[in-house]
Amino acid sequence: MTSAGVIETYGHGGDLLTAAQRFGREPGQFLDYSANINPLGMPASVRELLMASLAAVAHYPDPGHRVFRRALAKRLQVPEEWLLPANGAAEAMALAILGLSPQTVGVVYPCFSEYAQLSEQYGARVIGCFGKEANGYKPDPTELYTLFTQSDLVFVGSPNNPTGILYQPDELRQMAEWTKETNTWLIVDEAFLDFVEEERQYTLAAELERYPRVILMRSMTKMYAIPGLRLGYAIAHPDVIAKMRQKQVTWSVNALALLAGELCLQEQAYEEQTRRLIKAERAYLTDCIRSELGWQVWPSEANFLLLRTPEGLTAEQLQARLGKKGVLIRNCAMYPGLTAHDVRIAVRGREENERLLAALREVHAEGSEQR
Amino acid sequence: MTSAGVIETYGHGGDLLTAAQRFGREPGQFLDYSANINPLGMPASVRELLMASLAAVAHYPDPGHRVFRRALAKRLQVPEEWLLPANGAAEAMALAILGLSPQTVGVVYPCFSEYAQLSEQYGARVIGCFGKEANGYKPDPTELYTLFTQSDLVFVGSPNNPTGILYQPDELRQMAEWTKETNTWLIVDEAFLDFVEEERQYTLAAELERYPRVILMRSMTKMYAIPGLRLGYAIAHPDVIAKMRQKQVTWSVNALALLAGELCLQEQAYEEQTRRLIKAERAYLTDCIRSELGWQVWPSEANFLLLRTPEGLTAEQLQARLGKKGVLIRNCAMYPGLTAHDVRIAVRGREENERLLAALREVHAEGSEQR
Repeated sequence: MTSAGVIETYGHGGDLLTAAQRFGREPGQFLDYSANINPLGMPASVRELLMASLAAVAHYPDPGHRVFRRALAKRLQVPEEWLLPANGAAEAMALAILGLSPQTVGVVYPCFSEYAQLSEQYGARVIGCFGKEANGYKPDPTELYTLFTQSDLVFVGSPNNPTGILYQPDELRQMAEWTKETNTWLIVDEAFLDFVEEERQYTLAAELERYPRVILMRSMTKMYAIPGLRLGYAIAHPDVIAKMRQKQVTWSVNALALLAGELCLQEQAYEEQTRRLIKAERAYLTDCIRSELGWQVWPSEANFLLLRTPEGLTAEQLQARLGKKGVLIRNCAMYPGLTAHDVRIAVRGREENERLLAALREVHAEGSEQR
Repeated sequence: MTSAGVIETYGHGGDLLTAAQRFGREPGQFLDYSANINPLGMPASVRELLMASLAAVAHYPDPGHRVFRRALAKRLQVPEEWLLPANGAAEAMALAILGLSPQTVGVVYPCFSEYAQLSEQYGARVIGCFGKEANGYKPDPTELYTLFTQSDLVFVGSPNNPTGILYQPDELRQMAEWTKETNTWLIVDEAFLDFVEEERQYTLAAELERYPRVILMRSMTKMYAIPGLRLGYAIAHPDVIAKMRQKQVTWSVNALALLAGELCLQEQAYEEQTRRLIKAERAYLTDCIRSELGWQVWPSEANFLLLRTPEGLTAEQLQARLGKKGVLIRNCAMYPGLTAHDVRIAVRGREENERLLAALREVHAEGSEQR
């Protein structure tokens, strides 16, 4: 379903190498708003641990992820057998598809491209319903229910990427009930949930005993700013975890990711600080872009914003103009359900946000001159 | 086919955590002869690079592995399209099985347990022929040919783990010809080939244009002592590489592995030094064990040795006694085709080898007293 954008050669943001080739700068010289990573950078404790633990790479990672999984179980208050650490949430999704072998996978467009890509990669047919623009791209409940009746497995992002929309607890519970009624698996992709205030309200993690067909996917690379290390996990009924584990390649989670992950789980103050920063800066960016540029900005509960550029300035054009200024954004034109004018930007710290806004103002002014 | 040994909970050596639990020591306090890692440790240049490059984990790894793949192509003198970097050779094997979908996979016992495990994991039936003990566990050519006629894909290790046996160039070419005649895929697992002197003689890497059904698997974690980082790759016809790539999870190779891998490829002096060390110490260990203990040691071309313990001392007993002394070895009793008396030891540096030999002598003496 996806086609490559200016820098989305592999269908994702954060591809600094392609950006470097297209815009003639070193990969390290971009201000990256195309990937949604915690602007605070990795916790200092994690950086120190990694520096002190490089000798760990001389040994195989624990294939059972035992120490990390125990720490995770303690933090989440979930028994260990309900958890599967993975090489990023992407591997967890792949393992669910391989382990559950759905013939038909349902997605709610617009959404993270990997839901469809991984499904097709492993032989499933992908069907979808479209979120309603007027409703912040949430799907109509009747259409969503129909999707459950037609699918063996449904993917839902909450908060959803790239729209930032969060499903409410009663909506999640409704979907969880449908999994029983329609014999459908539900994967709730919670990769960005830890950026949401009062996140525990917005997950079924504490209720999974009642919903053995619901699988929660988490990422640890966004909140803790370690996407290069790769770490995520799944929460689900032990029978599902066993099916997923059965498809996992031995040692797929590397030794440094396991060590770092264990320490990240203790960083609750850093998480709080991040959520406060993201909330304030998300509001600031939204206000500035709406009031100064007059562009449409969708309400978001995550650490990114979906914007619509005005007539005369496509997402691709905006991406190219910002790229030449050293600022990367995500062109969302290739997301089914979005338009050639939709872009996604990360939420970062104030100083960086000012640089982004300055660059947006410049492009906006150039655009007005050209019109 | 495998059952767990005393410390082979996950079917492999190098599990320091299980060893720590069983033998009551800290994981870092073992002398590890159960995993076959370069005793020189990671090259100093790689350690320095990792220290200086931790900031790289704040960005996604390149999903196309472009810089590393280019460096690999240059080093191997193979076009880039013939290469696929992977999260260890284990992921490369998984991708080949997923991409080629063999119904029947043939293996030559005794061999690396992942050949059968991954095949069964992804739905293939596993059949095997047994290497002949008298022939260093190489299979009879007629039986091997029959295996090709009965399989969709055959795994061969060269040098083979745990026997250390290397296939000769004419044997490899014979198998490559059979792939055409019998329409069978052949995976040659060359994970330990870089420990072999004149390694280029013992691979079909330069002849793959003639053999589009042959896939070579390489590991970078053994020679460069980075098993915790995870890095391997496949060499094969671009059509096969594309099929494998199609099953790979985005970002499965982490950013530090890609950076380290690029630098490892320049470490030719370190590789030479390693091969000289391994050759000398392998001969030393073989001689000492044969002459002092009188145990059988199979000839090996790799950085490990297969031994047979005498009557009255099983592999499991030897492993447990050495484990209590802080020395880990691989119990090979669970390898189909081997016996309850077979163990594998790594080849390490002289000082460590003396410690291993001292521990073996102690156990041997205790055993004699007990008899």
